[in-house]
Amino acid sequence: MTTDTPMQLGMVGLGRMGANLVRRLMRDGHRCVVYDIDQAAVRKLAGEGATGANSLNRLVDELDRPRAVWLMLPAAVVDPTLDDLVPLLDPDDVVIDGGNSFYQDDIARSKRLAEAGIHYVDCGTSGGVWGLERGYCLMIGGDDAAVARLDPIFRSIAPGSGRAEPTPSRTRNGTAAEGYLHCGPSGAGHFVKMVHNGVEYGMMGAIAEGLSIIRHADVGKRAHAADAETAPLRTPEAYQYEIDVAEVAEVWRRGSVVQSWLVDLVADALARSPGLEAFEGRVSDSGEGRWTVDAAIDEGVPAPVITSALMERFESRGLGHFTDAALSAMRSEFGGHAEKRA
Amino acid sequence: MTTDTPMQLGMVGLGRMGANLVRRLMRDGHRCVVYDIDQAAVRKLAGEGATGANSLNRLVDELDRPRAVWLMLPAAVVDPTLDDLVPLLDPDDVVIDGGNSFYQDDIARSKRLAEAGIHYVDCGTSGGVWGLERGYCLMIGGDDAAVARLDPIFRSIAPGSGRAEPTPSRTRNGTAAEGYLHCGPSGAGHFVKMVHNGVEYGMMGAIAEGLSIIRHADVGKRAHAADAETAPLRTPEAYQYEIDVAEVAEVWRRGSVVQSWLVDLVADALARSPGLEAFEGRVSDSGEGRWTVDAAIDEGVPAPVITSALMERFESRGLGHFTDAALSAMRSEFGGHAEKRA
Amino acid sequence: MTTDTPMQLGMVGLGRMGANLVRRLMRDGHRCVVYDIDQAAVRKLAGEGATGANSLNRLVDELDRPRAVWLMLPAAVVDPTLDDLVPLLDPDDVVIDGGNSFYQDDIARSKRLAEAGIHYVDCGTSGGVWGLERGYCLMIGGDDAAVARLDPIFRSIAPGSGRAEPTPSRTRNGTAAEGYLHCGPSGAGHFVKMVHNGVEYGMMGAIAEGLSIIRHADVGKRAHAADAETAPLRTPEAYQYEIDVAEVAEVWRRGSVVQSWLVDLVADALARSPGLEAFEGRVSDSGEGRWTVDAAIDEGVPAPVITSALMERFESRGLGHFTDAALSAMRSEFGGHAEKRA
Amino acid sequence: MTTDTPMQLGMVGLGRMGANLVRRLMRDGHRCVVYDIDQAAVRKLAGEGATGANSLNRLVDELDRPRAVWLMLPAAVVDPTLDDLVPLLDPDDVVIDGGNSFYQDDIARSKRLAEAGIHYVDCGTSGGVWGLERGYCLMIGGDDAAVARLDPIFRSIAPGSGRAEPTPSRTRNGTAAEGYLHCGPSGAGHFVKMVHNGVEYGMMGAIAEGLSIIRHADVGKRAHAADAETAPLRTPEAYQYEIDVAEVAEVWRRGSVVQSWLVDLVADALARSPGLEAFEGRVSDSGEGRWTVDAAIDEGVPAPVITSALMERFESRGLGHFTDAALSAMRSEFGGHAEKRA
Repeated sequence: MTTDTPMQLGMVGLGRMGANLVRRLMRDGHRCVVYDIDQAAVRKLAGEGATGANSLNRLVDELDRPRAVWLMLPAAVVDPTLDDLVPLLDPDDVVIDGGNSFYQDDIARSKRLAEAGIHYVDCGTSGGVWGLERGYCLMIGGDDAAVARLDPIFRSIAPGSGRAEPTPSRTRNGTAAEGYLHCGPSGAGHFVKMVHNGVEYGMMGAIAEGLSIIRHADVGKRAHAADAETAPLRTPEAYQYEIDVAEVAEVWRRGSVVQSWLVDLVADALARSPGLEAFEGRVSDSGEGRWTVDAAIDEGVPAPVITSALMERFESRGLGHFTDAALSAMRSEFGGHAEKRA
Repeated sequence: MTTDTPMQLGMVGLGRMGANLVRRLMRDGHRCVVYDIDQAAVRKLAGEGATGANSLNRLVDELDRPRAVWLMLPAAVVDPTLDDLVPLLDPDDVVIDGGNSFYQDDIARSKRLAEAGIHYVDCGTSGGVWGLERGYCLMIGGDDAAVARLDPIFRSIAPGSGRAEPTPSRTRNGTAAEGYLHCGPSGAGHFVKMVHNGVEYGMMGAIAEGLSIIRHADVGKRAHAADAETAPLRTPEAYQYEIDVAEVAEVWRRGSVVQSWLVDLVADALARSPGLEAFEGRVSDSGEGRWTVDAAIDEGVPAPVITSALMERFESRGLGHFTDAALSAMRSEFGGHAEKRA
Repeated sequence: MTTDTPMQLGMVGLGRMGANLVRRLMRDGHRCVVYDIDQAAVRKLAGEGATGANSLNRLVDELDRPRAVWLMLPAAVVDPTLDDLVPLLDPDDVVIDGGNSFYQDDIARSKRLAEAGIHYVDCGTSGGVWGLERGYCLMIGGDDAAVARLDPIFRSIAPGSGRAEPTPSRTRNGTAAEGYLHCGPSGAGHFVKMVHNGVEYGMMGAIAEGLSIIRHADVGKRAHAADAETAPLRTPEAYQYEIDVAEVAEVWRRGSVVQSWLVDLVADALARSPGLEAFEGRVSDSGEGRWTVDAAIDEGVPAPVITSALMERFESRGLGHFTDAALSAMRSEFGGHAEKRA
Repeated sequence: MTTDTPMQLGMVGLGRMGANLVRRLMRDGHRCVVYDIDQAAVRKLAGEGATGANSLNRLVDELDRPRAVWLMLPAAVVDPTLDDLVPLLDPDDVVIDGGNSFYQDDIARSKRLAEAGIHYVDCGTSGGVWGLERGYCLMIGGDDAAVARLDPIFRSIAPGSGRAEPTPSRTRNGTAAEGYLHCGPSGAGHFVKMVHNGVEYGMMGAIAEGLSIIRHADVGKRAHAADAETAPLRTPEAYQYEIDVAEVAEVWRRGSVVQSWLVDLVADALARSPGLEAFEGRVSDSGEGRWTVDAAIDEGVPAPVITSALMERFESRGLGHFTDAALSAMRSEFGGHAEKRA
């Protein structure tokens, strides 16, 4: 599978995502010039066929004009990198931010780069560590001309239409069925990717809660304290099940309504370790879920499911401690209730 | 303040609530016969003027017919006590369950006692450790005749209308303004008390969360990890406040919209200990919150606030651990994300 | 694809689900005897190769012992049908309830049927109108012998392992990879199916909220009332997007983390009608979501995501009206705020 | 009750809140100079003893230096008013913003005014239409000197310590017990007021939901559709109550744990109209609830109760319509479910 229209792309940032994007592009015949502050990462990809660069300067020099430079960097590093990179570029060059930037930063950056005649394209990139093989779902924002010019790049990175059966009622053409979409002007790509991650939080929360309810279906077998601080279980006879959670996840993978990649993944994790003992249960959140809720609130759109999933992550990290202490304090005040220790 | 119509009441269960109810009744001139399995508790109240009984039998014998016997017991002990008590009673006697029984149990019990011609009255009793002084808010269910007969008892236990200014638009008579209310047939009292506690959960959750948000208004002063697992704080300059949470609770006690007894109580707890260090933050729930949500779901009434408060208590006790581990497992699977340890 | 071990099955209830189960079984060489109170439905399937029965009596007579009779009926009709059916059966026969019964009813029924020596198997059946083609995901409860005997039936109904790639870390054998699972004793099948539907609610809620947030990304273009009753939009310039929601759903179908059958389905619905004008937005709930939350509460497992999805459905049907009126009433009382009409 | 230290205050904005603040100040012997674009409002207060001004210019001229000018204006009008007012002021004058400004705006404004040597004090003012009589709870931010100078003003506006019993454990001095508090530097006052309103949302939501659950305790009396789209009510016999919601609110006013001003208010509204027929149930939100949730998210503090209350208000205004339509669309796709119309 080699593209008809090979292009050149500079890639800045050769972490797991950046390196795999380069590999996927090279498989399709594109020429990649690569840079990272870690020169070992550069040498590794150079060994696989990329053109290594030991500076941003060299990376820019190696590319024909109009250039396309893809940044695959932690969000906090994008602006400093742009400060270094933009002076090296020429009018009509394109910079693509493929990381997880906040979409409102894209709006500001695209204005800044436009003053130098440089295009800025924001590209939300989903697919995680599996993207090399499955392809990456791309949600793109920016001006039409720049996005159109990069089409062969996006097409090579995306999964392609063969990755899923066609949507029966779809009559339109357009690249969405290939797994990449120009969503709108600057920021629109990261906006859609941000919401994608919010949806991901909610779906993950639903799956994880469901598995937890199944795992605790044996609660009737366990002794309950019979004191005024403990809610009685009225029907212990209804909670006598010891259900194999790993096999439940496996069975949901085929034919069920909840069939999804996330169920595939949790089934794999549970197949390795049905009790998930390796995990403390401190669930990180890296920004997109927060911003999704902020957007929902700005828009006045109720999003209780996504919001609950975000709050659940905060709770998992113990961030509600003072709230909980205040609740115990009030119970102590009005009822003389002492906390039950673990 | 001595009632015009002194009555006799048997009290079974002399814990903090039961003993204080007896004291409040005796202050008002009622005669109380008291029993507890702990004879020291009986002797203590006998020393304060009550008639002590060393058995249920004696308690029943000491009361003139038609009798009124009030149970102030843990919910789990009510049915065994009724098994012992009911055979000792006569037709037209009344049993009052003043504890926190599940209202559907009241429906069954009232039917059972009715077969022996005995009235069963369910009485939700709110007021906690402060009721002796403030009076208790009573929510009552049962048949009209029995409830009417007990009116002097309820009136003495309740706070009385002087405890709050009159509701300006209220034109009706009725005992609600005295702090007690016959809510309906059997179970209606505990139903209203159950929902009262659900409301209490929600109000407590709101207050505790608000204080926590204020306490953490200094988050911009603390260093944040700058990695892909940590959501960046975009405006640290807006979170530079070190606000005195105890004084905030104090100021809200007068003139604010959130003025409430719960704010009074949390202000007192914070006055003693602004950091609430004595509390682990493991918040018990004793049934009524769960049942309130069950009722909301049965009725199809959305109750997201009360439900969130219940779930927050579950989280405070670490009951979401497997859910959280499953979330971390999924993140590890799709993104290679490792958990950040505490 | 014809099974090696053809069996006989009686099917009671020939609605969409029941009829398609029969078709899927016949394709695999099983003999089906079918009954429905609607004789036209019987005749239709008889025309496709099934043996029609005009009464439960005839259906039972047509089957060799030990018999297997599958009920595919609305939950409310199961018990009356069992009342008619059980006296016609013989010891060691099996009845399968493939509908959406409450799992605690299964526990009671299995005890009742066991008194007559009859096995009762509960089988949660997921797959909807697509099951004929995709196969049905089966979650099964009941005693080992009965479930084992029915294995060829379950295998033919289930999707089969080819419907998804193998779970990489899975080393066990077992039928889960075929799309059916014996989850435990009576009720375990419907318990897992109930939670499956709870998960489904949560996933659906997350997807729908996300699409809604994207659809309203143009909120900055619309005029906002500038009065004290309306929250100001502080950054209208950040909400100027008109994003094609249908194409977003399409692009998420390949390579994204939210890839799932539910996204496939909503993409199809949006391809037909991007504004979903055909829908009023009154979202039904048919019991399993409620029971899932009840179970979470009984177990003390926090399930805020699934619960929020349930409450969101209640809100969609206007069931929060009195709550909302009370909120407006309070705002009117303390602030003189008048409601803003639509 | 006349203050020992009468001061002068300019009041800009004579709506309900501004006018009553002036009245409360004049009762206490302070001299008020008042301005509003509505000259009728100015004349009215002049008739009650204030000094009327027909322009900002005149208002400034009428005040001795160092001046104190209180703005009681819609948030959107504050900045334009400052543009007009600040050039008229002199170094060491103070401007107080007593409205509902976003606290981050305060930070910016205080910097701007500091450049001209003018102090800016933000003052969250709670008390609604009842403040003239009850006093207003004041949450104040700004530099120490300016806040200290205004102490007699704040003291007169606040309720005073007599409005509630002392907090038993409180040993500190300080103004919080009088109902006003200097919370911290610029923005701290509106930050605390913002969170106060978030708490108010949560408390209101809990109360309203509870009353709604009580109102619908008769759901077992109503016929239920017995179809696959309707969740069955398993225990109709437990929902046969017709409870007088107005009287429940009244009884909660004395002795209960939920005793609060909000319960007082809803009791009054229900006393006038037990069915609240005058309300459509479209509940406004005016910003502070949104900002509270934004702050919780920025801080990483879980606030599920307050957040649910905010989302509930969005739902009350029908803002979840597209979400709901998408849910119905998915149900139609996988299960052929048709919406049940109202």
